[in-house]
Amino acid sequence: MAKVGVILAGCGVFDGSEIHEAVCTLLALSQAGAEYRCLAPNTPQMHVVDHLKGQPVPGESRNVLTEAARIARGDIVPLSDVAVADYDAFIFPGGFGAAKNLCTYAFEGESCSVQRDVERVIREAHAAKKPLAFICIAPVIAAKVLGKETGVKLTIGDDPETAKAIDLMGGNHLTCPVRRATVDEEHRIVSTPAYMKATSIAEVYEGVKWTVDEVLKLIG
Amino acid sequence: MAKVGVILAGCGVFDGSEIHEAVCTLLALSQAGAEYRCLAPNTPQMHVVDHLKGQPVPGESRNVLTEAARIARGDIVPLSDVAVADYDAFIFPGGFGAAKNLCTYAFEGESCSVQRDVERVIREAHAAKKPLAFICIAPVIAAKVLGKETGVKLTIGDDPETAKAIDLMGGNHLTCPVRRATVDEEHRIVSTPAYMKATSIAEVYEGVKWTVDEVLKLIG
Repeated sequence: MAKVGVILAGCGVFDGSEIHEAVCTLLALSQAGAEYRCLAPNTPQMHVVDHLKGQPVPGESRNVLTEAARIARGDIVPLSDVAVADYDAFIFPGGFGAAKNLCTYAFEGESCSVQRDVERVIREAHAAKKPLAFICIAPVIAAKVLGKETGVKLTIGDDPETAKAIDLMGGNHLTCPVRRATVDEEHRIVSTPAYMKATSIAEVYEGVKWTVDEVLKLIG
Repeated sequence: MAKVGVILAGCGVFDGSEIHEAVCTLLALSQAGAEYRCLAPNTPQMHVVDHLKGQPVPGESRNVLTEAARIARGDIVPLSDVAVADYDAFIFPGGFGAAKNLCTYAFEGESCSVQRDVERVIREAHAAKKPLAFICIAPVIAAKVLGKETGVKLTIGDDPETAKAIDLMGGNHLTCPVRRATVDEEHRIVSTPAYMKATSIAEVYEGVKWTVDEVLKLIG
């Protein structure tokens, strides 16, 4: 049975992991008979956003691992404790948390930095030829970590600004329909647009399921 | 196109809506071509639970509507503003929030009280012969509001203690497999065990999808 690490960034589209994308990832893995384990960095969130008002909450602080544990029903591992050798693949759902808590892309664009353990897991998994998947905005992390040395093929759908940033970071952006995924066979990296393009959760699920199925094929 | 209200209770299994059940509900509605709208009471949560430690956080306060907005991606309506006439059906996902924030079952058992707008929506929908669905622990709310006058048939799977409480509140508990739902045709009420029995999110999805399909059939 394949064992897949799902790397979360909090709980909620505006300051954490996009919940529909994260849950569709867990569902597609479960439906495919794979084992999953939720993982997240034990760090403070960049900020807390009131999802009703769409505004940051001044003075409030939440922890990425603690909030991500809501999606994981309490069963989650700090990313700093993760040995890449214990997993067959890793998947990064999207949401602003991927661009705020796992890297700083939301504020610094292509000159962003990547959280230490996120970078370590990506580098070690890539070196070990383990598949990696990136959903929605998360492909910017792959571009930042691996772009310069690999020219990795990635998609966020067809948003021109984000596609350009991926290319500037050394990635090779390809357009992709929302219900499909782009696969870089050489580098074993899968990506899908999800809510970068989707207008419904049913569309998100189809693209994520396609992604999960490609990841499991790459594990072999 | 059927319009279904999904009544949330926060965001996280231990103090709000169970996230997998809530997202599977939205997914199944979207896949069936139904329109959904997320709804929640604008009230403080009973408490906040650290989902990593499984312990309440002393002194922290969160709002049910504001946290539920995370599952709803910001698109949510206060339950006090909801006119039952504007909807074809209502679905209640589970999680401890259903038994802590929508009613007080988690603390008071069968002598619990039900949040005012939750009770109003259930009574008005039932009177108007609109279908209602209750997932996981949420059937205790239906038993409390409608049990004495209807003897409504409900399931939470086969947990003896909860089944007995449903009967004591006037409901009629029936056992049900996790991948199916129980339908009370007379009262147009559907229920499914979900995480009261499920050992995987794939099982939750099947039971919830069955529930959604039965609700849409009852709308006709």
